[in-house]
Amino acid sequence: MYYLREMPDKLTITVISGSVDRLTGMAVLVSGAVAMDVDVEIFLQLWGIYAFRKDKIRENTHLSEFEELGEEVMKRMVEKNVKPWHEVLKEAKELGNVKIYACSTAMDIWGVKLEDLEMVDDVIGAAEWIEKAKESNISIFV
Amino acid sequence: MYYLREMPDKLTITVISGSVDRLTGMAVLVSGAVAMDVDVEIFLQLWGIYAFRKDKIRENTHLSEFEELGEEVMKRMVEKNVKPWHEVLKEAKELGNVKIYACSTAMDIWGVKLEDLEMVDDVIGAAEWIEKAKESNISIFV
Amino acid sequence: MYYLREMPDKLTITVISGSVDRLTGMAVLVSGAVAMDVDVEIFLQLWGIYAFRKDKIRENTHLSEFEELGEEVMKRMVEKNVKPWHEVLKEAKELGNVKIYACSTAMDIWGVKLEDLEMVDDVIGAAEWIEKAKESNISIFV
Repeated sequence: MYYLREMPDKLTITVISGSVDRLTGMAVLVSGAVAMDVDVEIFLQLWGIYAFRKDKIRENTHLSEFEELGEEVMKRMVEKNVKPWHEVLKEAKELGNVKIYACSTAMDIWGVKLEDLEMVDDVIGAAEWIEKAKESNISIFV
Repeated sequence: MYYLREMPDKLTITVISGSVDRLTGMAVLVSGAVAMDVDVEIFLQLWGIYAFRKDKIRENTHLSEFEELGEEVMKRMVEKNVKPWHEVLKEAKELGNVKIYACSTAMDIWGVKLEDLEMVDDVIGAAEWIEKAKESNISIFV
Repeated sequence: MYYLREMPDKLTITVISGSVDRLTGMAVLVSGAVAMDVDVEIFLQLWGIYAFRKDKIRENTHLSEFEELGEEVMKRMVEKNVKPWHEVLKEAKELGNVKIYACSTAMDIWGVKLEDLEMVDDVIGAAEWIEKAKESNISIFV
């Protein structure tokens, strides 16, 4: 016997990276998802948590690739009025259904608490995260 | 009431990376997908667009990891007749149903046009991309 | 006419990376999946194979990002009794249904055999991997 579940469209994103380039790509996808009424859930791991720390989120300029082109790209993003990834994400969070969770193991490694992080809704474990991710139609690892 | 859609198998790939190692891994998956009659759609973001520029695609040797092992690995790839990622991708595009899109925001940042890019079929926005990705059974972020 | 297949929940992971940070994030997800009775299949590509080599798996300390913070993070992981990624993965493999495959093309590039790798069950090609990945409800690229 088969049960069909009616599920809302959902994008789930596991974020190991804390690099501005990968987070920018992620934020653009989240923004597109919200525009199409797709729910978004994000799970922050190691460097992901670092990048959402209130004392790092605005000053972090780390790139995962092509460090030597970083200055040129950042300059052009400012010229073209492309907002920083955390502003794009904040706007998406205000407009749509976007939940952000931090991995309990990684929180412990960094020794940070929920109030040290920006935009993060809750702290959960990996098993709980898998339960959420398996119900999504798009699931990526940043 | 439930409507079941009959969907072709589809792999969707969001490419933030412009590194040869990650692009090689991607091209191998695309090649495997085409061999199994799986449709492929690719969405190029920041460094992804850089790597598909006609003036960069053949000269780019950037690795995302283990730069110090790069020379050895590249040498062995030549010895073993493993083709460069862009040739593997081009062959897959000729054999199967592979569409490549560039992110409109990232095009603007680089100041490039469709004719500056190799193998790219169209320029689309993130919302349109999410519509495509949510209909796929495999969706990855490179 | 539609045929509904009853499928077990499955997480499939393509691993291009050989970096300890990304592998740690992956191992935590695998551990969470096993805890929730979700099957796991892993496909090792280029640096992924390097990281599973018996002569490298314990000595590899490469990070994909924030090299300058690596020492601090590693120290805190030891203090907090967070196990290395390969031990987390080994435990998950003992407890749950976790299969690890190596990409035949990448094996050839490295010139290694199955017995040179730790925890790897079999060598397969990309087309066979796509067949496995398309039947999963979560599919990520590390």
